[in-house]
Amino acid sequence: MKKVTIVGMGMMGASFALALKGAGLAQFVVGVDMQPAVLETALQRGIIDSAAANIASGVGESDAVVLATPVCAVMKLLPVLDKLNYRGLIIDLGSTKQAICELAENLPDLQFVGCHPMAGSEMAGIDGVQRNLFVDAPVIITPAEHTKPALLDQAIDLWRNLGCRVTVMNPAEHDYTVALISHLPYLAAVVTMNTAAELARHHANIFTLIAGGFRDTTRVSEGDPVMWRDICLTNRTHILTAIAEFKVGLGNVEQALETGDADLLQDIFQTSQKQRRTYIPRKK
Amino acid sequence: MKKVTIVGMGMMGASFALALKGAGLAQFVVGVDMQPAVLETALQRGIIDSAAANIASGVGESDAVVLATPVCAVMKLLPVLDKLNYRGLIIDLGSTKQAICELAENLPDLQFVGCHPMAGSEMAGIDGVQRNLFVDAPVIITPAEHTKPALLDQAIDLWRNLGCRVTVMNPAEHDYTVALISHLPYLAAVVTMNTAAELARHHANIFTLIAGGFRDTTRVSEGDPVMWRDICLTNRTHILTAIAEFKVGLGNVEQALETGDADLLQDIFQTSQKQRRTYIPRKK
Repeated sequence: MKKVTIVGMGMMGASFALALKGAGLAQFVVGVDMQPAVLETALQRGIIDSAAANIASGVGESDAVVLATPVCAVMKLLPVLDKLNYRGLIIDLGSTKQAICELAENLPDLQFVGCHPMAGSEMAGIDGVQRNLFVDAPVIITPAEHTKPALLDQAIDLWRNLGCRVTVMNPAEHDYTVALISHLPYLAAVVTMNTAAELARHHANIFTLIAGGFRDTTRVSEGDPVMWRDICLTNRTHILTAIAEFKVGLGNVEQALETGDADLLQDIFQTSQKQRRTYIPRKK
Repeated sequence: MKKVTIVGMGMMGASFALALKGAGLAQFVVGVDMQPAVLETALQRGIIDSAAANIASGVGESDAVVLATPVCAVMKLLPVLDKLNYRGLIIDLGSTKQAICELAENLPDLQFVGCHPMAGSEMAGIDGVQRNLFVDAPVIITPAEHTKPALLDQAIDLWRNLGCRVTVMNPAEHDYTVALISHLPYLAAVVTMNTAAELARHHANIFTLIAGGFRDTTRVSEGDPVMWRDICLTNRTHILTAIAEFKVGLGNVEQALETGDADLLQDIFQTSQKQRRTYIPRKK
């Protein structure tokens, strides 16, 4: 592509810009962000070739627009692109897909394909930029029923050329999946972090004693609050289902502790050990 | 020390054996384990110098005995050592301290000092052995009121010579601390893993899509079920306090989701982000 516009110069957008250029997929990248200082940084570091303060001035003659903002901002930007009569490829990188894709179906002239790269970190903002963020990452692409095969293929090729492992599923299936493997773990980490901090508020020096367990278990709780707020607001039903099941599991642990039920505790812990060994391959 | 006996050739005991020899703190290490195959492996890999099938045959003329078993086994072994009239230094590596130390106070002839190195991993068993497991690890030492200063100093020196950062606190304070920074995170990880596996049981291929978040958040849920059963059984009160507070926090998240309360969600997530940035320094 000659020119690609990326809206949102946070960790995801900036990393996507570097990935595009690194793979030789874009000759010229325009960055759009509300914060002038962020655009300045992106220009200085060579992450983008030019900067624009808003989407109207940023999309002219671009072959593709990448929406790398929190989900609710993606939902505000799609109608703007429609009004601008932008008819090039549009993808987003948002973490929930059903609300976005339903909105896009009502804007049938947009050449939109919903995408969710399963990559990221707790490092929000342009300072978290990672050149190889997408290499070997799973990416879920969620076409609507009316999405043209050629447009879907274009999106698939783009991600494959960045080194991603592409899975195609419908938006509802996507949102249920990520409620289980991403949103529930995040919320468990948030509540664990807040609980420990609350109960330790008069002796916070206990955190000097943490080992890898606490560090890893709570890492994602440092994620961007606005991004996670939008994820929660657009995936409420599935997340509430996951929380309801989590509460049942936690209740079983609590009951086993209250009654001193050694067998039940061991059984619960053997289950988690076995499930994780079965489903989560060791990191190379 | 000329001779040290280590009871339990799991990940902790085997790693302690390597650490002792590596630091030149023991000339001869005897390993005790119930499983002959584990002792055979320890001998073959040079982790121990000789093997004994039980503690009675393993402690003769040792300068120190290290109990590297799950907590409830430590509590069975202390009376055995007392009956054997073993009067050298005894330390344990157990993850809870109050139950163990209360038991030891009723065996006043034992030269016992409770210790808890905050190191470990989800790799249970001798295959998880790590030569540098204790380097720069925090270790909490929990003397009883009657513990002689010279004995305490001996234990402190031992850990410092292994490269650990030593903190001294009383057993009850220790158990409250680890309920917050170790046991609650473990239980949150267990319930997260089991919840995701349960809700995904008819489409387990979703686990091919996980990213670092799920991997890190659930890592500790692969830990040894018997070790964790014993931890829970001997720290029930403090863990139940932590779970009660966790349930309040989770209830707040649930309520915010049910009512679509964007501000409350963002506030909860800003709190966890701030707390973690404040208390948990970035890993070097």
